[in-house]
Amino acid sequence: MGKYVIGIDFGSDSARAVVVNAEDGAVLASSVKNYTRWSRGLYCDPGLNQWRQHPKDYLEALEFIIRDSLSKCDPKVASGVVGIGFDTTGSTPCFTDAEGTPLSLLPEFEDNPDAMFILWKDHTSVREAAEINTACSCSDVDYSKYVGGIYDCEWYWAKALHALRHSPQVAARAEAFVECCEWLPAVLTGVRSAGAIVRSRCAKGHKAMWNAEWGGYPPREFFAGIDPLLAKIRDSLPDGTLTADRPVGTLCPQWAEKLGLSTSVVVSEGALDCHVGAVGAGIREKTLVRVIGTSTCDMIVAPYGEVGDKCVPGICGQVDGSIIPGMIGFEAGQSSFGDVYAMFCKLMEWPLRNLSGLEGEALEKACSRILPALTAEAQKLPAGGDGMVSTDWINGRRSPYVNPSVKGTVSGLTLSATAPKLFRSLVEATAFGSKAIADKYVAEGLEIDEVIGIGGIALKNPFVMQTMADVMGKTIKVCNTDQACALGAAMFAATAAGLYSKVEDAVEAMNSGFAGEYLPDAERGAVYAGLYEKYTALGRLTEDALYAE
Amino acid sequence: MGKYVIGIDFGSDSARAVVVNAEDGAVLASSVKNYTRWSRGLYCDPGLNQWRQHPKDYLEALEFIIRDSLSKCDPKVASGVVGIGFDTTGSTPCFTDAEGTPLSLLPEFEDNPDAMFILWKDHTSVREAAEINTACSCSDVDYSKYVGGIYDCEWYWAKALHALRHSPQVAARAEAFVECCEWLPAVLTGVRSAGAIVRSRCAKGHKAMWNAEWGGYPPREFFAGIDPLLAKIRDSLPDGTLTADRPVGTLCPQWAEKLGLSTSVVVSEGALDCHVGAVGAGIREKTLVRVIGTSTCDMIVAPYGEVGDKCVPGICGQVDGSIIPGMIGFEAGQSSFGDVYAMFCKLMEWPLRNLSGLEGEALEKACSRILPALTAEAQKLPAGGDGMVSTDWINGRRSPYVNPSVKGTVSGLTLSATAPKLFRSLVEATAFGSKAIADKYVAEGLEIDEVIGIGGIALKNPFVMQTMADVMGKTIKVCNTDQACALGAAMFAATAAGLYSKVEDAVEAMNSGFAGEYLPDAERGAVYAGLYEKYTALGRLTEDALYAE
Repeated sequence: MGKYVIGIDFGSDSARAVVVNAEDGAVLASSVKNYTRWSRGLYCDPGLNQWRQHPKDYLEALEFIIRDSLSKCDPKVASGVVGIGFDTTGSTPCFTDAEGTPLSLLPEFEDNPDAMFILWKDHTSVREAAEINTACSCSDVDYSKYVGGIYDCEWYWAKALHALRHSPQVAARAEAFVECCEWLPAVLTGVRSAGAIVRSRCAKGHKAMWNAEWGGYPPREFFAGIDPLLAKIRDSLPDGTLTADRPVGTLCPQWAEKLGLSTSVVVSEGALDCHVGAVGAGIREKTLVRVIGTSTCDMIVAPYGEVGDKCVPGICGQVDGSIIPGMIGFEAGQSSFGDVYAMFCKLMEWPLRNLSGLEGEALEKACSRILPALTAEAQKLPAGGDGMVSTDWINGRRSPYVNPSVKGTVSGLTLSATAPKLFRSLVEATAFGSKAIADKYVAEGLEIDEVIGIGGIALKNPFVMQTMADVMGKTIKVCNTDQACALGAAMFAATAAGLYSKVEDAVEAMNSGFAGEYLPDAERGAVYAGLYEKYTALGRLTEDALYAE
Repeated sequence: MGKYVIGIDFGSDSARAVVVNAEDGAVLASSVKNYTRWSRGLYCDPGLNQWRQHPKDYLEALEFIIRDSLSKCDPKVASGVVGIGFDTTGSTPCFTDAEGTPLSLLPEFEDNPDAMFILWKDHTSVREAAEINTACSCSDVDYSKYVGGIYDCEWYWAKALHALRHSPQVAARAEAFVECCEWLPAVLTGVRSAGAIVRSRCAKGHKAMWNAEWGGYPPREFFAGIDPLLAKIRDSLPDGTLTADRPVGTLCPQWAEKLGLSTSVVVSEGALDCHVGAVGAGIREKTLVRVIGTSTCDMIVAPYGEVGDKCVPGICGQVDGSIIPGMIGFEAGQSSFGDVYAMFCKLMEWPLRNLSGLEGEALEKACSRILPALTAEAQKLPAGGDGMVSTDWINGRRSPYVNPSVKGTVSGLTLSATAPKLFRSLVEATAFGSKAIADKYVAEGLEIDEVIGIGGIALKNPFVMQTMADVMGKTIKVCNTDQACALGAAMFAATAAGLYSKVEDAVEAMNSGFAGEYLPDAERGAVYAGLYEKYTALGRLTEDALYAE
């Protein structure tokens, strides 16, 4: 009788579970559920960039995907399950009462968006982030130094400050502020006290300025100086954090019964999706894992004592144990990647939607063919064809060196410009943005021997991946799974359950292998090397002249 | 019984005649004919940028449009015609034999493109232009100083050198090289000797380095130093040139009979279309006339002794009498204007042509609706909306300071970019290019009190014209005629025929008035002032970093 683990991935729109053989990583079954209220647009306001998710969406999804995926397996599998692991989006935190219950699960806060999970991409706390950055600048210690030097409005403390000020009733009742990846394990293990909820090393290190250098979080006075409301949240936090390879407990009787699993099933601590996905993809030293979707996350690990104890500027953060316990996990990323193509496709939809006479399904079908048709045509053009050069910053820039104010540029327009030429230039721009991040890591002493791609675009768009390989001058391997995050969560669950002594062993045994690889072409690479210099110049010049703050 | 004049405009694709009352400028009739061989693509090679026109096309059009326009008038009008005037594209020259006959009208050269008129936009002589520029640089006198400091491949001497080298048979037979605007009056007046063909002040001053400062053309040795082939052409040129207000003769019996006109009809000297169009539009001191089509020509006049004797750098040229005799005529221009919109519309055609399923007429109709639909949507957006900023250099830059290597740029792309926003940014960019030229004139001491627009876009696109008025901060009047060039030719004909003592009087009496005017809006102007600085910065930076030679 084998042993099985369940990896659970809570994404932006849906949650997914995979039931995995803990010995070899074989996936037995999986299940996905979209968030019900979220998919109806409830509690959100795109005009304000307010994005909230109701904990009921999470609870309903959690129960459904575990039961549904188990129902697709041999009935004996359930009794072989030994562990459950989690990854979620983040920073996606929620206020709880003293018992650790999200406030929006209480009748009086049921419809209050400030009492719900504040999704990572919520941008309502821009002003609060600025206050935190000012406080960091004025402090003797720059507490933002390990999160890239600029505290982002998408992160924990900014979100807390905004919601507490915005909803006095929430502020009066809130006893803690808990990340989704911390709350879900607490739910399954039956935690009944906010103080007992175990905090995630990954989430707290990357989003809440937790760092061993200053003994945990910045001190109470730092937060009190910004607003006493924050001091209360600071007080609620235990000093310690847990890496994702560690158990937080076992299934509580209530959930064990609900799921048809044993109360001996170990639940491991949660972590953020990209970090867990990097593990699922097989990250190790000198390997850059790129999660490539609408945006990218670029993950790398290094042991302490090499570059691991050096502060790398211009990236999103570096945290001891955020990816592989015992190593420093580094995170960087492009704030738009697939979004660049989506923007251009949306431009190309305009004539179809306004002038073609098409309607309904026929219109949507024509629109859906834009990306594949552009890709097919662009692929036939020579590298750097026609001398166009573009930048990829259509949603600001995340790395290297965050600047939310910069915008995208296309240069080289002539009388002979065509839609496929423009599209090719944008694909090249996203590859140049990829190279800029890899080059930054290397410049700081982090070697890159190979690149692994995961995410939708990695599996679906060979033209984009080949261009990326050519521009970066590196072989790019593509994982043989579209569930790297859930698989990574399963690897952590297996480790926490004691089947492996360290997560690296789980990776070795359970990885999915590769679906293929893209080898860099030297000839195109030479063309791109010249164009990359122009990309760099164009970016620097437009940033200085047009997008200076 | 009134007196009438015929104004004739030879454009790039067709020729047009207007029969005009010489007293008040009222247009009695007009006629247009497309060039037959040209419209079938004969003798041209787009890949080589070779554009040639057969003199038979011109002769057939000439006869047709005069007879056809007269046939639409009261039969008595023909006997009241006292003058015929011409404007043509240029530099559009052709080699002739000793009798002044274009070589391609001889049987042995009938199909030789080098024996035909070499249309202004022909770019086969790029290398020869470079040789001429080198010779100018090495010469004690810079003979290019009054044509903007760079001799263009579209001009007389470069075209002569290329064709003479390319076709030794042509070189052996050529006795002269004659502009279209010089040849047509010679045809009508029955000139039978190449040496007797009167040369146009406008064409020779702007395109052939004729200037009084050095006593006419550069000396024989200058051309011999480049190639002895050119020395022969130099030898063929009479020293003098004529302004367009002067008669070259009267109708020869053969053409008088052919057209049903008297042999006493005066034929005035021809000139280049934009210069004549500026007169037709009512140019006078402190008035900038803009001919606005696929590109623009920006004409201004100033009396000698003010700024008229100063060399203005960075424009296309300045010639004594090229527009109004007795004043210096200045020419500048944007190398792409309507072409910028055409380029974007072509991009927007891509989805319709490839994905809509439309075909034939329905497809063409949908494509033809792109420009009006984009215009309607862009017009609703705020000035400088969304912070996009673009440059208009999609076909290089003509003025200020020619640079054929620069290319167009769009910056400010974000996730919320839309086709109308992008189109609006391009319209603003063409208006910024307009302002750059006007500002250059003013910086050199040429005052601009008002702007007059002529050409297709001036009459047809109020959104573009309003944006131009807002950006330039000037009232723009639009002529009440779409035939300003032909009307200007008629004004010159009336002056040459002795009905007016100077062309200014003909302008006063015969002008068409204005169809309307665009007043600058101060609020939008303030927004554009800030954006214009960014346009300037974006242009300078991309020119330096991406398009340096």
